[in-house]
Amino acid sequence: MSKLIGNAIFGQSGGPTSVINSSAAGVFTEALKQSGVIDKVYGAAHGIKGILDEKFYDIGLEDPYEIELLKTTPSSALGSCRYKLADASVDDTDYKRIVEVFRKYNIRYFFYNGGNDSMDTCNKISKFMQKADWECRVMGVPKTIDNDLFGTDHCPGFSSAAKYIATSTMEIYHDARVYDTGMITVIEVMGRNAGWLTAATAVSAYKGQGPDLIYLPEIDFDIDKMLEDVKKIYAKDLKCIIAVSEGVKAADGRYVPELVGSVDRDAFGHAQLGGTATILANYLKEKIGCKVRTIEFSLLQRCAAHCASKRDVEEAFLAGQTAVKCAIDGMTDYMIGCSRPEEGEYRFDIKLIPLDEVANTERKIPREWINEAGNGLNQPYIDYVLPLIIGESAPPMEDGVPRFAKLKKILATK
Amino acid sequence: MSKLIGNAIFGQSGGPTSVINSSAAGVFTEALKQSGVIDKVYGAAHGIKGILDEKFYDIGLEDPYEIELLKTTPSSALGSCRYKLADASVDDTDYKRIVEVFRKYNIRYFFYNGGNDSMDTCNKISKFMQKADWECRVMGVPKTIDNDLFGTDHCPGFSSAAKYIATSTMEIYHDARVYDTGMITVIEVMGRNAGWLTAATAVSAYKGQGPDLIYLPEIDFDIDKMLEDVKKIYAKDLKCIIAVSEGVKAADGRYVPELVGSVDRDAFGHAQLGGTATILANYLKEKIGCKVRTIEFSLLQRCAAHCASKRDVEEAFLAGQTAVKCAIDGMTDYMIGCSRPEEGEYRFDIKLIPLDEVANTERKIPREWINEAGNGLNQPYIDYVLPLIIGESAPPMEDGVPRFAKLKKILATK
Repeated sequence: MSKLIGNAIFGQSGGPTSVINSSAAGVFTEALKQSGVIDKVYGAAHGIKGILDEKFYDIGLEDPYEIELLKTTPSSALGSCRYKLADASVDDTDYKRIVEVFRKYNIRYFFYNGGNDSMDTCNKISKFMQKADWECRVMGVPKTIDNDLFGTDHCPGFSSAAKYIATSTMEIYHDARVYDTGMITVIEVMGRNAGWLTAATAVSAYKGQGPDLIYLPEIDFDIDKMLEDVKKIYAKDLKCIIAVSEGVKAADGRYVPELVGSVDRDAFGHAQLGGTATILANYLKEKIGCKVRTIEFSLLQRCAAHCASKRDVEEAFLAGQTAVKCAIDGMTDYMIGCSRPEEGEYRFDIKLIPLDEVANTERKIPREWINEAGNGLNQPYIDYVLPLIIGESAPPMEDGVPRFAKLKKILATK
Repeated sequence: MSKLIGNAIFGQSGGPTSVINSSAAGVFTEALKQSGVIDKVYGAAHGIKGILDEKFYDIGLEDPYEIELLKTTPSSALGSCRYKLADASVDDTDYKRIVEVFRKYNIRYFFYNGGNDSMDTCNKISKFMQKADWECRVMGVPKTIDNDLFGTDHCPGFSSAAKYIATSTMEIYHDARVYDTGMITVIEVMGRNAGWLTAATAVSAYKGQGPDLIYLPEIDFDIDKMLEDVKKIYAKDLKCIIAVSEGVKAADGRYVPELVGSVDRDAFGHAQLGGTATILANYLKEKIGCKVRTIEFSLLQRCAAHCASKRDVEEAFLAGQTAVKCAIDGMTDYMIGCSRPEEGEYRFDIKLIPLDEVANTERKIPREWINEAGNGLNQPYIDYVLPLIIGESAPPMEDGVPRFAKLKKILATK
């Protein structure tokens, strides 16, 4: 394979996670080592938008200690975007602009960190560059708390969110049982079409300190059946804890908020959910006549770096680092994925997934991992998730709060 | 001082905290050592209600390791209550019952863990027992995330909640700035009449990663002035983060939710707040026309033991332990408080506060610690709070989640 010499750019896309910056640290650390192959290492401000706007930072000018701190800094340090590229056959303006910018800055390595939509973006850009005869290696670095990326055992970002959710749900369990009066608690967890994260509350249940009922988008949501389930538990315990995915929907496809009102949609046409727990809690309050409490983990579940999984932080770093190594070795158009041994101890085995396979394919929880009633998880899910949440990430502390990375963000000049 | 020989009972009251069980560990550990003075050590189920119902656990039968684990277990392991005793001069039924139970079980030491209302309860019970000629030493162990207890520098529970709030607010700050599009984030923090906890978001601001505006109940809330403040910041940054206490109220005394609807009240006549941030966010969305996001820390801020302050855990334990030691030494009718040196290094100096001084007196943030505009904190608050949040409490972990105490809860028999 011929050596491809030039500059590299890395961008972060989609909703942030606790470890997306750890992947950035992996990409930057490895790319900055590649003297003779990679000259400049750029970080795009706000993902693909920063490339279109020619707004990116010269990472070589950053303090190495701050790059190290990225490992334990939540959210997207470079800024992210939810920008949707048009279909190139309809409007190729953005694609032409990207090739123009890449030529201008001699960008030969493009690393993009994101979920399904971002892998789709990578794939489209790569195809267009091939057509435009600009040699550039494109590698996707996976990221999503939703864990719905196709072809990979799991995805950086998920494990930390799962650890936070399992831990916080246990704490809420203790809080919710403190009085001897009746109380129904409804916990809302992110997850539009896949219930991986909501299912993490099953770890708390496995520890005897979790929800009584768990509702996932994988199962058609039946509000009458839920009421029946809740009534039974409440009659016995005077307490009921329910974990519900924001994305649960009835058999006719309607989300819970849609049952009572209109729903906004984003640039990708995704419904902007939220409020599911409040709606269900009010419903239960009316039907059962007891006190209800709603907990929304909201942004906290994707940015609580103080409660990250050590394994997740390490794997996210490794994914970024491996993307660079593979590209240097001549690979392109792959996403870094992982598998684990079918038997025995957990191990993180890197695997490469062609971008056109991963793009826009969603992975859901296997039906047999969900109990028959569709309101709880079976042991295979617990066995799957436990190795991922083990180990605590310890960001350095300063004045009793985490010391997060502070990048200088010096704009690149041609 | 004559030696008072008999049994001891401990109860937990009011809303739980991350460290209320650490005080329980302090009381139990110390009381169980007092052979020859204290025979049985009881833990009341659901505070004073457990005493009235003769429902309490024999703590001597618990595994010492589980008592040790109480230090890092959130919420009230024994169960709590929000039971209000009547005025004894109007209806002394409950008081007579308490004396009856105390006589029956030969209870000579009564330790009660709670906030303002609980100290008032302790005080009333003690006075009644004196009248009824039942010698029993009564000591209050302070507890409140609100930090509004009179006469003490701070209160166990506050520091851990403050640490969680400061940490989570920093994480939210990073998350909220991830896109280059406009966004207003409103964070709601607990605190009915005192803003100590909401003020903890100022630690994040002090670190350059916090809210732009902080609204406390100490300052009359002016919604027009807030809108003006937000507009200015948003025009400049396209971002604005606001931290607001659930208890902010207008000059005419109305809480934010009361401006738009009715409010429930609890047994103590306290308004059941919540929803303040959502109401303000909707108001700002309408007035400014931008995307808004609401974060409610809700129960998480008082039960996130995974992010507790090490100092708080230790001080809470010490408060419980000292209550027992003082009672053994003959003291009664005091709450354990603390002071710190006026100059130099932080130190936790125990101080005893007569119960009738503390009961039902609320402590607020000094006006001079709040900035002139009434929308931020001054350096003295930061200097006050930083020593309290230093050090991380590390609950033992099992399967990637905290291992919390599991008490056997064996009911006491006469």
